[in-house]
Amino acid sequence: MIRVAVDALGGDRAPGEIVAGARDAASDSIQPILFGPRGLDTSGLELVETTQEIEMDEKPADAVRAKPDSSLVAACRAVAEGRADAVLSAGNTGAMLAASLLELRRLRGVYRPAIAIPLPARRGPSVLLDAGATADARPEHLLQFGHMGAVFAQEILQIPNPEVRLLSIGEEPEKGNQLTLEAHALLAAGDLNFAGNVESRELLNGAADVVVTDGFTGNVCLKLMEGTVKTLLEALRDEITTTRRGKFGGLLIRPAARELRRRLDPDTYGGAYLLGLRRLAVIAHGNSSRRAIANAIRIAARGVEHDVVGRLAQRLSERVVESARPETPTRP
Amino acid sequence: MIRVAVDALGGDRAPGEIVAGARDAASDSIQPILFGPRGLDTSGLELVETTQEIEMDEKPADAVRAKPDSSLVAACRAVAEGRADAVLSAGNTGAMLAASLLELRRLRGVYRPAIAIPLPARRGPSVLLDAGATADARPEHLLQFGHMGAVFAQEILQIPNPEVRLLSIGEEPEKGNQLTLEAHALLAAGDLNFAGNVESRELLNGAADVVVTDGFTGNVCLKLMEGTVKTLLEALRDEITTTRRGKFGGLLIRPAARELRRRLDPDTYGGAYLLGLRRLAVIAHGNSSRRAIANAIRIAARGVEHDVVGRLAQRLSERVVESARPETPTRP
Repeated sequence: MIRVAVDALGGDRAPGEIVAGARDAASDSIQPILFGPRGLDTSGLELVETTQEIEMDEKPADAVRAKPDSSLVAACRAVAEGRADAVLSAGNTGAMLAASLLELRRLRGVYRPAIAIPLPARRGPSVLLDAGATADARPEHLLQFGHMGAVFAQEILQIPNPEVRLLSIGEEPEKGNQLTLEAHALLAAGDLNFAGNVESRELLNGAADVVVTDGFTGNVCLKLMEGTVKTLLEALRDEITTTRRGKFGGLLIRPAARELRRRLDPDTYGGAYLLGLRRLAVIAHGNSSRRAIANAIRIAARGVEHDVVGRLAQRLSERVVESARPETPTRP
Repeated sequence: MIRVAVDALGGDRAPGEIVAGARDAASDSIQPILFGPRGLDTSGLELVETTQEIEMDEKPADAVRAKPDSSLVAACRAVAEGRADAVLSAGNTGAMLAASLLELRRLRGVYRPAIAIPLPARRGPSVLLDAGATADARPEHLLQFGHMGAVFAQEILQIPNPEVRLLSIGEEPEKGNQLTLEAHALLAAGDLNFAGNVESRELLNGAADVVVTDGFTGNVCLKLMEGTVKTLLEALRDEITTTRRGKFGGLLIRPAARELRRRLDPDTYGGAYLLGLRRLAVIAHGNSSRRAIANAIRIAARGVEHDVVGRLAQRLSERVVESARPETPTRP
């Protein structure tokens, strides 16, 4: 039985959709444990009572320090203390990051954590990291992200010997900024299945099994894809509905458009792993629906089942001496 | 009469589409001058004969040094020497950047040049810069980009008192990486109509009149929007054509889809200004069609007509003392 600690108060649609998603995910092998206020209707799921709540717009580090009994921090602590196997929150991402670093702590040898996002690319799923944990990354961090992504692709996406590429502004090794130029050299010298740089225009098409970038660029990319898909589909709908002919055509293509939207839907995965910690943490989109939460809990359980953290620890400890510029791990 | 020096050998479809576009753009007020090999059929336009050619995949700095009589470098030199008013190339962007810096030189007080790209946003045009000239930017560069973008928005997009925003990973001033945090402070302290950070999901919707970012992030964004639109429309077409009902619906919405594609078409602007130089340089997409080239020549002429370079020089010279961390301008 895999126990997933769920922050019942995290996310724009909490607690309703969170509780409903947790109930959907509950099974013979998955036991969601909800963290929230006394009296919360959990439809029979276990409730760990908490007395505080971290809002979406609070300053992460301050909030985590000031609210040790918030649903978010308490859920992280439960995992750290072995009362659950993984933690999930759709709340304040920065606070989840801060609480995870504080309670779950980094794996030995890990410089910086990374958020690994599965992309619904056309040629099949791939993973982009870092999607926002480490906004200011150094070359050796990107090398580690490559290893983290490779473990994710192998264990979660079931891709043997995943191909790793570095996101840059040209395919040639000499194209990029200082960070990507140095990271390229480290990645090329390492033992990953590194296939060079990739440009962002290929991201949604299926750029590589693993796409490595810093947390600032990764977060910008993620939100840009989301926004571009949304704006484009809305604009197409507006164009279509200006004529009767178009409206009728729109009705006929509706099933196809719906299928496409389903395929691109971030809810399909629901959650992103926060990698580099001693236990598994999963971050869900703030706007997560019941379906997204259920899928995120399942993805958390799959990560526990496949021992993603253990494999990552092993892989990184084997390679920690490789780094060209070792530095003492510090808190970001 | 505005004379535009056109690199006839630059771009994937050169010289055919370049010459055709130049002929289309020729008018009572615009005189394109083609730079290319002896014997090139220019349909009656003036030809300046050159003996060398820079290929798309050559290393920019080396190519520019080694080929002073290439069509690209010669066209830049003609502008520097006053034989033309602006230069246009759809060739190797890096080489165009290097040749422009060498021949046209930077404006006094300009730290780094920036590529200003008009975005066909839903709420109306806006300008994104830098789209790739300065991959490693510093906060004071971003402040200058803000001023460059404001001049562009006023003179070319005809937006009075344009709103400027900084691309980051959260709207709050404290969200971002080290570069955006420092740039935010400089922009907020200056006299631009600065409205804070903007997230990438708003880019295609119409984030602001001017969106400021470093050249690495800007280039990644540009290519990601391009790729996402392409992938999405292809995927939609694939979904539609799997059923007869969908196929028929697809026929009916074709005019709407075509209109949308036209609106998002980068060919509408055709060219991007390389700002921060003493004369005007315009860079066109490598894949530019005849229509894109004609529009790019017209946009170059409009920049000359509105004296974008002069206004930029004035604006930057007035504000050069403002920069929080002045540095000696150096070649990138």
